[in-house]
Parts: sequence; structure tokens; C-alpha cells
Amino acid sequence: MKKQFIAVFILAASLGLPALSQTPVYLDETKPLEERVKDALSRMTLEEKVKMCHAQSKFSSPGVPRLGIPEIWMSDGPHGVREEIQWNSWNVASWTNDSCTAFPALTCLAATWNPDMSALYGKAIGEEARYREKDVLLGPGVNIYRTPLNGRNFEYMGEDPYLASVMVVPYIQGVQKNGVAACVKHYALNNQELWRGHINVELSDRALQEIYLPAFKAAVMQGHVWSIMGSYNKVRGQHACHNELLLQRILKKDWKFDGVVITDWGGAHDTREAALNGLDIEMGSYTNGLTSESAFTYDDYYLAKPYLKMLKEGSVPMSTIDDKASRILKLIFRTAMNSQKPWGSFTSEEHYSVARKVAEEGIVLLQNKALSKKEKALLPLDATKYNKILVVGENATRRLTEGGGSSVLKVKQEISTLDGLRAKLGDKIVYTQGYESGRAMYDHVDVVPPSVTDSLRAEAIKQAADADLVIYVGGLNKNHLQDCEAGDRLSYELPFGQNDLIKGLLHVNRKMVMVLLSGNAVEMPWVKDVPSIIQGWYLGSETGNAIANILTGEVNPSGKLPFSFPVKLADNGAHAFGEISYPGDSINQEYKEDILVGYRWHDTKKIPALFPFGHGLSYTTFAYDKATLSSKQMPAEGSLAISLKVKNNGTLGGKEVVQLYVGDEKCSVVRPLKELKKFAKVALNPGEEKLITFTLTPDDLKFYDEASVNGK
Amino acid sequence: MKKQFIAVFILAASLGLPALSQTPVYLDETKPLEERVKDALSRMTLEEKVKMCHAQSKFSSPGVPRLGIPEIWMSDGPHGVREEIQWNSWNVASWTNDSCTAFPALTCLAATWNPDMSALYGKAIGEEARYREKDVLLGPGVNIYRTPLNGRNFEYMGEDPYLASVMVVPYIQGVQKNGVAACVKHYALNNQELWRGHINVELSDRALQEIYLPAFKAAVMQGHVWSIMGSYNKVRGQHACHNELLLQRILKKDWKFDGVVITDWGGAHDTREAALNGLDIEMGSYTNGLTSESAFTYDDYYLAKPYLKMLKEGSVPMSTIDDKASRILKLIFRTAMNSQKPWGSFTSEEHYSVARKVAEEGIVLLQNKALSKKEKALLPLDATKYNKILVVGENATRRLTEGGGSSVLKVKQEISTLDGLRAKLGDKIVYTQGYESGRAMYDHVDVVPPSVTDSLRAEAIKQAADADLVIYVGGLNKNHLQDCEAGDRLSYELPFGQNDLIKGLLHVNRKMVMVLLSGNAVEMPWVKDVPSIIQGWYLGSETGNAIANILTGEVNPSGKLPFSFPVKLADNGAHAFGEISYPGDSINQEYKEDILVGYRWHDTKKIPALFPFGHGLSYTTFAYDKATLSSKQMPAEGSLAISLKVKNNGTLGGKEVVQLYVGDEKCSVVRPLKELKKFAKVALNPGEEKLITFTLTPDDLKFYDEASVNGK
Repeated sequence: MKKQFIAVFILAASLGLPALSQTPVYLDETKPLEERVKDALSRMTLEEKVKMCHAQSKFSSPGVPRLGIPEIWMSDGPHGVREEIQWNSWNVASWTNDSCTAFPALTCLAATWNPDMSALYGKAIGEEARYREKDVLLGPGVNIYRTPLNGRNFEYMGEDPYLASVMVVPYIQGVQKNGVAACVKHYALNNQELWRGHINVELSDRALQEIYLPAFKAAVMQGHVWSIMGSYNKVRGQHACHNELLLQRILKKDWKFDGVVITDWGGAHDTREAALNGLDIEMGSYTNGLTSESAFTYDDYYLAKPYLKMLKEGSVPMSTIDDKASRILKLIFRTAMNSQKPWGSFTSEEHYSVARKVAEEGIVLLQNKALSKKEKALLPLDATKYNKILVVGENATRRLTEGGGSSVLKVKQEISTLDGLRAKLGDKIVYTQGYESGRAMYDHVDVVPPSVTDSLRAEAIKQAADADLVIYVGGLNKNHLQDCEAGDRLSYELPFGQNDLIKGLLHVNRKMVMVLLSGNAVEMPWVKDVPSIIQGWYLGSETGNAIANILTGEVNPSGKLPFSFPVKLADNGAHAFGEISYPGDSINQEYKEDILVGYRWHDTKKIPALFPFGHGLSYTTFAYDKATLSSKQMPAEGSLAISLKVKNNGTLGGKEVVQLYVGDEKCSVVRPLKELKKFAKVALNPGEEKLITFTLTPDDLKFYDEASVNGK
Repeated sequence: MKKQFIAVFILAASLGLPALSQTPVYLDETKPLEERVKDALSRMTLEEKVKMCHAQSKFSSPGVPRLGIPEIWMSDGPHGVREEIQWNSWNVASWTNDSCTAFPALTCLAATWNPDMSALYGKAIGEEARYREKDVLLGPGVNIYRTPLNGRNFEYMGEDPYLASVMVVPYIQGVQKNGVAACVKHYALNNQELWRGHINVELSDRALQEIYLPAFKAAVMQGHVWSIMGSYNKVRGQHACHNELLLQRILKKDWKFDGVVITDWGGAHDTREAALNGLDIEMGSYTNGLTSESAFTYDDYYLAKPYLKMLKEGSVPMSTIDDKASRILKLIFRTAMNSQKPWGSFTSEEHYSVARKVAEEGIVLLQNKALSKKEKALLPLDATKYNKILVVGENATRRLTEGGGSSVLKVKQEISTLDGLRAKLGDKIVYTQGYESGRAMYDHVDVVPPSVTDSLRAEAIKQAADADLVIYVGGLNKNHLQDCEAGDRLSYELPFGQNDLIKGLLHVNRKMVMVLLSGNAVEMPWVKDVPSIIQGWYLGSETGNAIANILTGEVNPSGKLPFSFPVKLADNGAHAFGEISYPGDSINQEYKEDILVGYRWHDTKKIPALFPFGHGLSYTTFAYDKATLSSKQMPAEGSLAISLKVKNNGTLGGKEVVQLYVGDEKCSVVRPLKELKKFAKVALNPGEEKLITFTLTPDDLKFYDEASVNGK
């Protein structure tokens, strides 16, 4: 034995290796994550641990330079990787390598009802983030669409917890394949932008668990997301970013989340709560810049010096910092220090192709009526019929990747709807702006003089009078008080005088195709008079190509609404109980509609929607056979299979989303008329038929029983 | 066979892998570099290839975003990783994560005469660059020290081609171990800063090959450096950055360099020459910013659109761009796309320790005479003897990492000489500034009012009168026209009235220890009167600790001069032939001293130096035994061994540099009296003796025979 030992020693010496030198455990990627974290932690000072828990710049947090542990660099998401900004200011850094691919808004992704699209989207945006050397992509957002006034709905995945759950998981997995953490947001109940920084949300446990949390739970338990962003608002009296119920009890205990909780920028408000209640990284607290001595600096963050002081005094336990630092180290090992991650790519043909595919599958054909029994519907467009096609509307040319708040993008390419139509239909296309909205500003509304509005309208109506077809391209935009962070819409109406304009146009020309670009439902007083309506969301780099492909029928629409379009605002559950339910009294609000969000409200209260959740037409038609059940009753353990055949009985290939809803005819508590439990998107050639089978388990029939949970 | 094929196919399918999808060759790190380059090149457009050949910002060049090939990020070296600056301006980016470790200037590294120090230095600075995510570190510099007036000598490794060759190789290897390319500079003959942008250097082939190129050749052929920086000046009528002789014939053909030639910033002047003569990446050409249409932008660089145009017209061959792009791809694969590279580290204890060790081994004890036969020399300091130790001189407190041009550093820590002495000697230390030099500006000289100079001097002399010891800390600094890029010194004298000050101090107190901090030799009119003189270079973060350790004897000095200190400027070979030899007539200059640079001039012309090349004292003494030769003659093939014993016959442990010079008593051409051919640094305890053996080969005796080369 002794000889062998000597032999080994000599071998090491002859290789020029010091006998005792070896890779430290924390740098050894063959070792388990937990061991590496423990090893790194053991080498760190208390100060170094605390440093990791707060920002060092607008979008980065420190590593441990002396140990070679890198910084964490974050970027806004969720629709593309944001432009570089300055170290400690929101001003742009004026780099020229950061013009990204803009993917469609998440409402559009949800409207595809296709998890494969979500996987493609996540992979592609993750590759862009990786190429740009980001470690955390701040997205996706899965806050439930509660009211069409919420300024930030376009960044979310609609009103249904199951749809959002199914769609969020592949996005996360796609991003994280690249060694980039997704950061699911905003956890939780940031369902309006008005007073978002302080509004206190009160709601039932059941509404929380059945409606507002499932998509986050899926992100954590199925998507294994590596980070989550706390929201700005309060929940039951405590800020969400350091909320004991949300973070400690639900996220970290019940869901066993092993990642990092990051504040929304400026979402922290209290050192003790942040220390004790599971916040890991504090970002974006206000700084006055670092130039004057009296300025509030990163060292003054709640989780900086004040936290260090409490730790040293013993007024918060050391276990809190060890937990936080361990989670942050784990995040770094999964991202910045993952040597196996791929290299990513940026603005590739493949990424544009993903952006276009998602756009094409997410566009929803809301309505497509023939003008008379003798005529066919206007869509798909038969261009041979028209000599002059008038495109009207600012959204046909406007850059809709600009504005909107933190999701703003600097893009390498954004093909407008007008560009896309011109590329396909050429000289037949004539454009007039129709209305003017002013510039996209974060917290500012340009006032457009009435004279401008009037003259633009008059010109459009004049042009429409002798057009063979009018394609109206309007909706909302990313201006403040439209689809934009930090404010809610002031009304359910279309803004910028569009309803008057549309009425005027219809007066001279009924052959109108309406393309609405927005992240929210809008009121449609002209709905009966416009034969064809398309909901086109915000589509990013490939906007024009996708819309032109849908309008001309090169692609058959297959998107379905991920949220209900009520006829009027009062028909939405959040608006049925007065101000205390929405928007609250500026201090508190109570979700009075409880679990009856979106279609659950419309169905249960028998209030028809203008266009319901799940709605979306095709250029072909599908026939549904009668469903069969594997047994009449759900067994206590096991499952129940539901099968049906779906056939494309039209003349064009297309995709259909088969949706399975479950209702409970008799129950001890109020239950929605029906709830989405399964869906499948199926592609069918003309005449083709496929058998769809869904498997339900007892869990799919359960409700959250407050009585039994609280009784425990 | 058929069955097996099917089985494999099914296996692939069952893993969910598309049968045809596999990692492209260029992304497969198991494939040979040349294959990967070829594969990547085959996927690139001509425009993408051209884009790689020029800057996109002040310090980066583009990759191929759509293919996931990353950008190249460069940073000034060579003494530390430079602060982040803005995308397209020299203004700082105001980041707070970029305060680096400052290592000693390269003159100090050369003065260690210890390749192990060079290896430590390279590894440590490479780790700092890696942590900061740099792909190319712009250093080290190995331009030969021709005149003490050259403003940039402090960034180089002295006057001897062999010493510089031995020292540069481990630095490069140390850096490149980190997946960071070293960029050896400035190739070649940028031996003065005055008129550096246009001065045309004429010299003999022999001087070029024997004196000015060997260190570059060693960097390429032994160090395998991955990039090299072209210099600003012209050589034989053609700018060095696109010089056919230097780049095509010598570097790429003779030395088989397979890396990338990068311009010094703004060093390119001609598209055709750049295309044909081996320039690969053009950096730093003037831009007016990117805001106005008429501005000169990166697209207007010589190797941007003008090159693309020539390629498309066929007026330069496509092979030129394929060669450049291949080299750049190879560089990227070696650096940014090397997934095996370590993570680096930043401002670690180890890095400070390396900075201190290099400083301690590089400090040269020039003189240490006893004031009288009864007394011992002042050094090492016996602090018990003194109650008041007066430290005089601005350099004792000045940040010497600031200024100097591109080597400027933003440091996390810089312990001044005064800090270091106070830490060791405490309250005994009294400080007075003595002289004032004004601020460190790149291209500007502050004029200090005579009244300030006079009053500082008077105060210092008053303080010195009753001091027990005076430690004078002066020398040069990094101001314009001192040790600073873009200008040469105007005189060999110490600046800022220091000679008057020193004279005044000596008049009242002869007990003076002189610490000179500079990157150049200076005139010493007071040399006979100052008993102890230390040459302390620029030492970076650990300046004060290293100097205090040397002065107190905690570390025994062992540095040796890497260049000669002439008594007066005219004693230097470059200054012996009038203006045409230095600085030239603003258009041309001729290196009239030819191969007789530095000690080769002093020795051969029998002009004694003030302190010669290779000189450096110790606090102990060494005895050299007589050398023995293995044979009397060098065999035509084979080698000759020279052995001698060296003994530490003093009472302190210390290190000695044993230096082997070779001379040729009779030769067909002029040869220097002696030339350094080998050296060894050896550590000896008191009484210890070691046998040193050098092996010479015939190559060590050769000269570059212009007659036979040109006759060929």
C-alpha cells in the first residue's frame, strides 16, 4: 500500500502539479449542485453574501470577484431581449449590437393554444438572451387577465389558469435550455397597473388558489423555473416582494421552489420583511445616482447595509442570508457558470421564422361574414377582385415594439402591416393614416389637436369612397394609458377617435376588413357592420408578413381567444361590483367576483360575451363527432378518457383547437358553469379526420375547499 | 446490415431527436480547429466576413449573430484590465464593477529577470480579463528600449532582445491559459511616441532581425500568441499595420503566425494595403460618432465598405477576406467560444500577492553606500535608529496607475509608498510633498506656478533639517511628456524642479534614501551624494507594501536593470547621430546606431553607463567561482556547456541573477562587445552554493548576415 501511494505522488509531481492542488468543489461541474453551493458558501464572507442580495446596477447583481463567481445580468423580456442601458440610469447605452428579434406579445402566444409554439418561442428568445450574455430573462408573465383595462395584459397569457399553465411551461423550458433563467412574473395579483406600487389586494383563498396561482405553480413545479419576480402590489396587507404567505408558505414550502425570488424594480420596502419572508435579490430600488455623497446608493438598499446590520446585531437570523446566498449561487451555477450551455444566436432566420409562425398561429379570426347571400366572405382576400385596396390606420405603419414600458424593444427589423401587404399586393395598396395618436411615451400622453384628427379622418373617408376594399388597421398602441406598464386604460373604447373614423368609413364603404392590433379586448360598437374582423395582437418583427399571410389565406387562421371580449365593460366580472373591486379605493381593493373571472363570469352569470374565450374562426370548417366516455363515472383513483373525432369538412387545410371544459351540476360551493381542463390543437387536411382522446383525473374535478383547508 | 440501420434510426426517433439534426461542425469542440473554421466560413456571407474585419465600437468587433458566433471584446492591458468606456466614445461608462488589480509596469517585470514571475503575472492578469469577459488583452509590449525619452518605455521589457524574449513567453502563456488572447504589441519599431502616427523608420535588416524583432518572434514561435498589434509608425515607407515586409513576409510566412493582426487604434490608412498586406482587424479609426449622417462611421472603415467594394469588383482577391475571416474565427474559437476556459477571478488576494511579489523582485537597488567607514549602509533600514523619518516627494502619495495613456487603470486598491511606510514604521514617518507636478492628463501639461514650487521646496528643506532620515520618493509620473503615451519626454532630467529640491535636501541632510518611481532612466547629477538609491518603477496596487518590504529588508532586493542608465543623454546610442537618428525630421528617421542599442553601445563604444544593464545590488553578497567549459570550441552541431558555482557569502538569504554574455573577438561585421545569451535567477540561503550550468548552441553565436541573406 505504501509503495502505491508513493507512486501516485511521484506521478503528480512529474506532471508538474502541486500534490495538494485540485479544482475546488464549487468549480467542479461534475459535483452535485448542492455540494458546490455549500462549498462556495463556506468560502464567502458575510459581506459577500449580503452583496449578492441586491443590485449593483440597473440590471445586474454582483458575484464574488475574488472567487471567480460571476455577476448575474438580467434583461427585460418577455418579447425580446431589451436594449442595453447605462449602468445607473435608464438612458440607453447607445450600443449598436443590441437590435433584437421581436417575438409576438404573450397574448398572441397564448392565442395559439399550442404548447409547441411556446417551446419554439422559449428556445428562440433564450438563444437571443444567451447570445447577449444575459443570465436571467425577465419573463414570461402569467398574471391572470382580470379586466380589459389592465395596461399590462399584453405581456400575459390570458384569463384562464389552465391555458396559462400549459403555455408557460414549454416557454420556461425552452429559455432555460440555453443556460438562461426564465423569471416568471409578477408574483402575484399584479392584475392592474393603476396604483400598482401600493394597492392592497384582498381575495379569497379559493380565488387565489384556483385562478391566480396555478400558472405560477405550473411554472415552478412543472417548468422548474429558476427565478420568479415579486410584484409591486400588496397582498393582504403585505408587499408581495416580501410576503410571508406568497413566498414562504406557498412558493418555497408548498411548491418547493429552489430558485431565486427577485423584486420587480423598486418592489422592496422593508428590510426585516425582505430578510424573513423569502426575498432573495432586491433590484431597482430608487437611487439618485452615485455622484453625490448624500445620494441613495446600492449600499442603502433594504437588502444591503441595513440587512447586514440586522444580521450582525442578530435581529434577523444568519440562516436567512445563507438561504438567500445559496439560492443565488445555485442560480449562477445554472446560468453564468454553466460551461455546457450552448452559444445562443441572435436575429437569425430561424428566430424570424419562429416569430412569424407564432404570429400566424395566434392571430384570431373573430368574424368573417359575407356581405350578402350572393357573395363570399371577404377573407381570405381574393386580390384579383380589387384594383384599389385602401389601408387605413396608424397601426398599419407604427412601430408597435416601441413604448409599453419595460417590454420596449429596439429591433433590427419590424415589418409593418403596410409593408407586409405591399409586399404581397403591390401597387393595389393605397395608404392613409386615418387617425393620429401621438408619440409612445412611458408616462405621458401627447394631445393631438382636433384639427389633425378631423383632417386625417376626412382624407381617409374620401379615399375609402372609391376604394374596392378597406383594410382598417387600428386598435390600441403602447402609449401611456393604452397597452402600457404603469397605468391602466381609462376606458374600454377604442382611443384616438377611431370609432368615429370607422363609422365614417363604413358610411362610404361597407367592404371593410378590420385588423385590430392590441393586447386587450376593446368595445366594438360597429361590430355588426364590419364583415371581417381579425384580432392581431402585437406581433413583433414579422407583423406584416404574418398578417398578410393570414389575410390572403396563405396561412389559415387557427388562433383562439385567450380571454373574453365583453360587449361592454360592465359585463366583465371585475367591473360588476363598483370601485372597491376595481380599481379599489387607492389603498385597498377586493376581488369581489372571486373565482368568476373571465368566461367563468360570463357563463355563470349568463352574460353573453361579444367574442367568448376560446373563440376563433378558420377558413375551413370542422365537424365534431359525439364524444364518448370510457366510463360514466370518474373512479376515485384512476382516470376517465374522453374521445371524439374531429373532421375537416371544408376545402382548405387548417388547424382546430379542441377544448374540453368541465362543469359541476351540483356542488357545496359556487362553481363556474364550465372550466377549461384539456385542449389539443390538431392539424387536419381537407377531409381528414382524427381521433382526439383526453384523459381526466380526479384532480381535474376538484375545487379548493376553503372550509376543509382552513379547518385543518 | 439493413436491420441494424433501422434499429439505429428507431433509437434516434425514440429519443425524440430528428434523425438528421446534429451539432454543426463549427460548434463541435471535439473537431479540429481548422475544420471548424472551414465549416463556419462556408456558412457566412461575404458581408459577414467583412464585418468581422473592423470594429463595431471602441473595443469590440462583431461576431456572426445569426450563427451564434460571439463578438470579440478587447481591453487595454498590459498592467491591468482597463475601465469600461462607452460604446463609441472615450468617456467612461461609469460602471462600478471594473476597479481592477494593478500589476507592476512591464519594466518592473523585466527587472525581475525571472520568467516564473512572468508566468504568475500572465496567469493573474489573464484571470482578471477572463472574469471581466474580455477575449483579447491588449498586451504585453516588447518594443525595444532605444532611448530614455520614449514616453511609452514603461510598458515594455527593456533594451535587450533576449531578456524580452525570455520574459514575454510565460506572460503570453499565462494569459492564454484563461481563454483570453494576449496581443503582443506594437509590431514593430514604435520606439518613440513623438510623431508615432507617421514617422517612417529606416534601419538595417540586421538591426531589425537582431534587435527589434526577436521578442516578437519568441511571442509568436514560442509563446504561440493568438494576436499581435500593428504599430502606428511607418517602416520603410509603409505603415506598420499593413506592411508587406513585417506582416506578410516575416510574421505570417517566416514565423508561421496563425493568429490575428489587429491595428493599434487608428493605425490603418489604406484599404488596398490593409487587404493585401495581412491586416486582419481594423480598430479605432476615427469616427465622429454615429448621430449625424455625414459622420464617419464604422462602415466607413478601410476594412469595411471600401474593402467590400474592392472584393466585389475583384480588385483584391477573395482569398484575402477568407484568410482574414479564418484567422478571426480561429481567435474566437480559442477565446470567446472556448467552453473549457476557467472562470477567472478579480481583485483576489492571490492577485494582490502576485502584484506584490513581482514588485518586490523587480525593484532594483542601484546604490547602497555607507556614509562613512564607521557606519553601515542606510539600507536595509534599521528603524530603531530613527525618531523622525521624513518622506519627501509627490510620488509617495500620487496614484501612479492614473494617466499614461491607454494603460491607465481604475483600481480597487493602490497602496502608496507613504501608506506602505506608515503601515510599517508608524508615527516615525512625517510627510511633506516637496514638489508639485500638476494633474495627470493625456495630452496636456499643467503649469505649476513657481511660487508653489518654491514654497513646497522650502517646507521640505526645513523639515529635512531636523529629520533623522530622509526618504525621497520622486521620479517621473504618467503626465503628458513624462511616462505617457502619445508624446516623448522633452529632456533626460528629472522634471518638476526635483534636482534643485534634492540638492537643497542634501545640503541639510545627507542621510537620504532615494526611491525613484519611473519607467525610464533619468539623469542623476546628485548620484555621488545620495548614499542609497532604489529604482522602483511603477508598481501598481501593492506599491507601498513592496517598497516598504524592500526598504526594511523584509525582502532582499534582487531586481536587475533591464536597460542602461546613461550618465547623460548623448551617451545613448540613439542620440549620438543627431536628429535624423532621433527623433527624425518628422517624416523620416534612421536608426544610425544600428545594432548598438543600449549596453551594446556603451560596451562597444566604451562609454560607461551611470548604472549598466543587468546591474542590481543585494543586501547580501554573492561569490562567483570560475566558469568551466565543456569543450574549448563550439561543435558545428551540438552544444557547449558552461558551468559555475555561485555562493551566498553574506548573512542574509537572497536571489542572484547569473548572466551569461557572449562576444566575438574577430568577425567580418561589427559585433557588440558582448550580448546576453543566458541567465538564471537563483535563490541562495546564507552560505549556500549552487552549480549553474548554461548550455549554448551554435545559434547563440550567430549574427544576421545581410550579405548572405540578400545574396540568396
